[in-house]
Amino acid sequence: MIEIETLPFSRFFLPGPVGVRPEVLARMATPMIGHRVPEMVELMGYIQPRLRTIFGTTRPVYVSASSATGLMEGAVRNGARRHVLSLVNGAFSERFHRIALANGLKADALEVPWGQVHTPDVLDDALRRGIYDAVTVVHSETSTGALNPIRELAEVAHKNGDVAILVDSVSGLAGAPLRADEWSLDFVLTGSQKAFAVPPGLAFGVAQESVLERARSKTDRGTYFDFLEFEKNLEGNQTPNTPAVSLLFALAEQVEYIVREGIEARWARHAAMAERTYRWVDEMNARGVKLEILTPAGARSPTVTCIRVPTGWTGPKVVEETRRRGFAIATGYGKLKDVSFRIGHMGDHSVAGLEELLGVLTDVFR
Amino acid sequence: MIEIETLPFSRFFLPGPVGVRPEVLARMATPMIGHRVPEMVELMGYIQPRLRTIFGTTRPVYVSASSATGLMEGAVRNGARRHVLSLVNGAFSERFHRIALANGLKADALEVPWGQVHTPDVLDDALRRGIYDAVTVVHSETSTGALNPIRELAEVAHKNGDVAILVDSVSGLAGAPLRADEWSLDFVLTGSQKAFAVPPGLAFGVAQESVLERARSKTDRGTYFDFLEFEKNLEGNQTPNTPAVSLLFALAEQVEYIVREGIEARWARHAAMAERTYRWVDEMNARGVKLEILTPAGARSPTVTCIRVPTGWTGPKVVEETRRRGFAIATGYGKLKDVSFRIGHMGDHSVAGLEELLGVLTDVFR
Repeated sequence: MIEIETLPFSRFFLPGPVGVRPEVLARMATPMIGHRVPEMVELMGYIQPRLRTIFGTTRPVYVSASSATGLMEGAVRNGARRHVLSLVNGAFSERFHRIALANGLKADALEVPWGQVHTPDVLDDALRRGIYDAVTVVHSETSTGALNPIRELAEVAHKNGDVAILVDSVSGLAGAPLRADEWSLDFVLTGSQKAFAVPPGLAFGVAQESVLERARSKTDRGTYFDFLEFEKNLEGNQTPNTPAVSLLFALAEQVEYIVREGIEARWARHAAMAERTYRWVDEMNARGVKLEILTPAGARSPTVTCIRVPTGWTGPKVVEETRRRGFAIATGYGKLKDVSFRIGHMGDHSVAGLEELLGVLTDVFR
Repeated sequence: MIEIETLPFSRFFLPGPVGVRPEVLARMATPMIGHRVPEMVELMGYIQPRLRTIFGTTRPVYVSASSATGLMEGAVRNGARRHVLSLVNGAFSERFHRIALANGLKADALEVPWGQVHTPDVLDDALRRGIYDAVTVVHSETSTGALNPIRELAEVAHKNGDVAILVDSVSGLAGAPLRADEWSLDFVLTGSQKAFAVPPGLAFGVAQESVLERARSKTDRGTYFDFLEFEKNLEGNQTPNTPAVSLLFALAEQVEYIVREGIEARWARHAAMAERTYRWVDEMNARGVKLEILTPAGARSPTVTCIRVPTGWTGPKVVEETRRRGFAIATGYGKLKDVSFRIGHMGDHSVAGLEELLGVLTDVFR
């Protein structure tokens, strides 16, 4: 078989897929089990309460054998009636907008520049027109490191009547504060390969009754991401379709680990890693290396930071020089590829581990 | 972490997920790699030609992070224009029909009893009305062990003009003869967890230009299973969405193994396991144990056999007694659960390995 060059968990700082602890990877070697058997029900029964704790919900948490993009599609097919307002401030919120259009819905984009976030006031103005029944928004924009004020945006949505807020928290959940029920998020989804630090291939979502009611009225909501099917099957701790069994074994290992750390302690650790990254940028500037964080203070995600490169550098050059020193980070995303790089300080990394990476980056810019 | 009771590969005969060789499972412990990096391109570049050999195609093979149900949805969203004819002869072909309806298409079911197969003549009659633009059909019905004559059905579809045949070969491909290009299958899909003997969580599909042309004309074909996105990304050996990286490592190991065995040798091994199963049923009848294969000779899948139980038995009782002896098989599916059991003789099992299971089953019925 082909041998692919890889890096150990401790040196892998992409903003997704993130490094996965060897103990979690090892779980995937568990022999196969059926998917309509008591063993599977037992496994899902173990996973569910832990996932609910992480999401801050008493509702069932859907476990989809797909990437998060699949549940973004599910969000609009189940939760939007006719006309969607998409809050766009980066590549993934733009994708959410395109997904609405690609599923036959009307959708308008409300855009702010990449790196900026949306404000409740502007959303309020847009919704007051009364034409939108759903809002799509990205909590933590992996492409820019911006963190939208989801809780406040949800309040504004609900103040405007029967408007569902559909939240992509792909690089947010399990790293940045979020409480699905308390914040009244009509639907919130995430992927396994970001702050959860599980290999990619799973997506998780929680819908409130508001979205299920919409789903019931939509006869063309499809099958694979049909929320009513997820609900029905989870009553018996099952999944509508064949689950990715090996990934569920990894997930079971990891949700227990996360719950043992404590979700608030996990948020605090992510905040500390982010703060350390910001201080490092200051230190570099003090040395004359003109780095700049794309997103203004107060609007930053604790899980990923996008940093503009100084004159004479490109994103790919920073990544390549870092890789030559045995560490992985990412370039900027899309149109920011050449002018920036991104550090994923999320998942199971520690401030001490991050310190090693920052030492290497300091050397890169020396 | 929770400990789930499992059985080794050699004792695991479900008709999916099937037993996976330990070498394939072990590959999933490979550390993470990014999904827009040269390592991923290299990995997919290794997988693609081997997958194409297995499918009998020169076209790119989509690798979807989903179960096969996802690509069934993709099949109708991309490949059907308005009105679908669903050939139904079991639970999964019925599901294909429901998927067409759930995606806003018109769809009629042409049904034969569970365990029977469809004939070219009857399909020809149905298509001659000229109202259908697509046919959905299941190659190997995992719920019954019936094998539809896909090649002949495809000929009839094309004889009737611009009709696309959309084929679910979930428990067929890599176990039963199929050549995507030579048989002119407009779209054919399968899952990783059947005759491929890879853990569940991946689905594979091949579309001909006929289906891509349809996709181009459909603006509501969605995002996650958008065939044009798969095509575009595969030009650079990439995937539209984050792939299930760990499962791709397992897949790379297994496609090389399959190609080394040789696809025709693999088909022959499956046929030999099926024949051995039929002989065992005859032997049991000779001893007075009234077992009966659901599907008539000539219409049977080489990968799965559904067997009716004698008076005094139920499907669950056979499964339970087999399990007490350390082997896994399945009950009948859905409405056949109580009256039958199923043996999955597919993937990497051998006739010798199957012989052990049949010995145990003989003991069960003693």
